[in-house]
Amino acid sequence: MRLSELSERSGVSTATIKYYLRERLLPAGARITATQAEYDESHLRRLRLVRALLQVGGLPVATAREVLAHADDASLGRTMRLGAALWALPHGPEPDENAPETVTARADVARLFTELGWTTTQEIGELSPVHRSLVASLATLIRLGHPCEVEYLAQQARAMRELAVWDLDSLEEYPTEAEQVEAAVASAVLYEPLLSSLRRLAQAEEAAQRYGIT
Amino acid sequence: MRLSELSERSGVSTATIKYYLRERLLPAGARITATQAEYDESHLRRLRLVRALLQVGGLPVATAREVLAHADDASLGRTMRLGAALWALPHGPEPDENAPETVTARADVARLFTELGWTTTQEIGELSPVHRSLVASLATLIRLGHPCEVEYLAQQARAMRELAVWDLDSLEEYPTEAEQVEAAVASAVLYEPLLSSLRRLAQAEEAAQRYGIT
Repeated sequence: MRLSELSERSGVSTATIKYYLRERLLPAGARITATQAEYDESHLRRLRLVRALLQVGGLPVATAREVLAHADDASLGRTMRLGAALWALPHGPEPDENAPETVTARADVARLFTELGWTTTQEIGELSPVHRSLVASLATLIRLGHPCEVEYLAQQARAMRELAVWDLDSLEEYPTEAEQVEAAVASAVLYEPLLSSLRRLAQAEEAAQRYGIT
Repeated sequence: MRLSELSERSGVSTATIKYYLRERLLPAGARITATQAEYDESHLRRLRLVRALLQVGGLPVATAREVLAHADDASLGRTMRLGAALWALPHGPEPDENAPETVTARADVARLFTELGWTTTQEIGELSPVHRSLVASLATLIRLGHPCEVEYLAQQARAMRELAVWDLDSLEEYPTEAEQVEAAVASAVLYEPLLSSLRRLAQAEEAAQRYGIT
């Protein structure tokens, strides 16, 4: 399809599409003449993802480009493509190495993953920014006088693992690995607000069932 | 205890404590002399919560005051005290009433809660800002070409409900209703970044187990 049809089908203006092309957020189409290029379904899909990253995820253009570069790097294995893209997404705070609570939090997190038997997570450890921000959040909780039991974290983590099983099962329904990686990035960015709403509603419902509404 | 001891035990400067008192984020101590007041453990606890709301939750002072006013309103039943405080916390976007996707999203959400049998959530409906932001997030997903199956949402919601059961069980270990409500507010604000880290780590671990690390 031509640029105009890509714009129509995606609902994104041609000016914006040209901007994404210049910023290398969208791969160039196949050149037909000196002034025209041909686009396909993969461009349409990518356009949706770019909009999700920028508009919903609020990612800066440079970060979005990095995330997409990882997702596109077919030289990486599937886990690394998924992981590298997720790692580049915005994440929480870094641990404060001068705070005594960081030592406690780090020990708790180590105990957590031993207990869960998450061997890869243990192996990668704080090379992962997500792992580091878990340590940082936990240290903040301790500092604020709301420490969190490892056993409680383990329960939450097991529930998240179950969700991850469902997530990967539904990703595997996409025919190509490129699409799976794209869907993984989209769901990481788009599903978090949704899960946070569901969590709060679940708490309200559970409270209402226990204590009634008065 | 005196102001100086409250400051020492909480690690919050006396100037900041005085500011919180002026802003009615912290209830006044019991007046002993014209210039001195006595504070107790409840002030220490409240101080921790105020810091969590402002520093970690990033709430504006006025919002924090509203959240705490609801939490303190003993004329409300327990569910309403928990719920009112949670509703006042910052939440997602409002549904766009002019978007056709909002109609679809609203129907999906209605179907979701019927399927789950969450009767109170159904009854309160979009009076709850959390419920409204769930509709809005879902509408965005549809608009961006990543629609979300009701069945998938239901699975996630059931997992969140299980977490809510654990959450309320651990809240009930606090001796007074006031403390339970405070702990609920703290966990709503503080645990979200933690759960989001755990979710991403769970996905990475599950991917590594399925596809190996290459």
